[in-house]
Amino acid sequence: MRIKLLIIILLSVKILVITLFMTHFKPFRKDTQVVLNAIHGRTSIRAYQEQAVPDHMVEQLLRAAMAAPSSRNVQPWEFYVVTKRDVLDSLARDLPFAKMLAGAPLAIVVAGNTEKGSPNEEQVYNWVMDCSAASQNLLLAAHAMGLGAVWTGVWPYRDRVEAVRRHLDIPDHILPLNVIPVGYPEGEQEPKDKWDEGKVRYMR
Amino acid sequence: MRIKLLIIILLSVKILVITLFMTHFKPFRKDTQVVLNAIHGRTSIRAYQEQAVPDHMVEQLLRAAMAAPSSRNVQPWEFYVVTKRDVLDSLARDLPFAKMLAGAPLAIVVAGNTEKGSPNEEQVYNWVMDCSAASQNLLLAAHAMGLGAVWTGVWPYRDRVEAVRRHLDIPDHILPLNVIPVGYPEGEQEPKDKWDEGKVRYMR
Repeated sequence: MRIKLLIIILLSVKILVITLFMTHFKPFRKDTQVVLNAIHGRTSIRAYQEQAVPDHMVEQLLRAAMAAPSSRNVQPWEFYVVTKRDVLDSLARDLPFAKMLAGAPLAIVVAGNTEKGSPNEEQVYNWVMDCSAASQNLLLAAHAMGLGAVWTGVWPYRDRVEAVRRHLDIPDHILPLNVIPVGYPEGEQEPKDKWDEGKVRYMR
Repeated sequence: MRIKLLIIILLSVKILVITLFMTHFKPFRKDTQVVLNAIHGRTSIRAYQEQAVPDHMVEQLLRAAMAAPSSRNVQPWEFYVVTKRDVLDSLARDLPFAKMLAGAPLAIVVAGNTEKGSPNEEQVYNWVMDCSAASQNLLLAAHAMGLGAVWTGVWPYRDRVEAVRRHLDIPDHILPLNVIPVGYPEGEQEPKDKWDEGKVRYMR
């Protein structure tokens, strides 16, 4: 009986150790897959529940955006966080591809300060790249937090830039790159598989 | 003795169930943090070990890049994967801010097909945004896989575009946005904290 007891205890401990090891002590492989899954699982979400997005989640979205790299570390981004209903509705009315703003509890406008870092003539589009990288970070963070979002283009469409500038009172030296509606997703949306080997050239 | 045995078995099973539950059945909160950590942990890595980056990891980098969103779903990106030593060295010589290519086992050039989707005059920079989002995905995937990488700018610097075009034999309608050296990091690099509340405006 003693021996049986000992075997059972040892077996239990062994199972416990194996379980802990499998789930905890190989963080690299699991975490890698979690990040890759987020990158591949993210997709454009255009329908949202009414529920507001809590402030601490909005801050996480902005923190993620600002963690992007930027040319010469200029960090030219500026963010407009809109939850005011009539502003969201006005934007929905005036932006041709952002009608879903009428049903979104939140929108974040990613904009670029075109004077920051005093760009020379070959650096005038740096803010576009930097703000695009920041936007992608924001979209991934939203997806990782269970939120849905979609990048709707603003710059360089003249009418869209003017509409956003007017409704958000944005000064001339700041250009809105996009408007990103955010909310808890309504319904399920499958991400597209866009892998295309034909777009890769190798120089080995 | 029977009862003791039963108690021990039940206790073991309970511990096992709790452990499994804690580690497996609450993926949301843990996975969210893993993704946010990757976004914040990524930083520009400019020194690499000699070790080659395995092909399956290169493919994961490209898959992540192609999972980015694109305007009108045009997916204008093209990728040049360079492991050929003399090409890497030539690029290092001719690109002013990509000298680290001389010590990198791999570089990926993210380029845009400027004819894809027949852009009108307000859509001519869409490839810049789309390729920037793809580049950010690639950088995050590299970080998540334990690799180091850095975005070195090419477009629209005329001399850099010409150098890359020449060494990689890129046709005229494709513009190289950047060159991203990739490798296993040499040494430790702390990410910058770029959070700046002053860059956020609220419209509530």
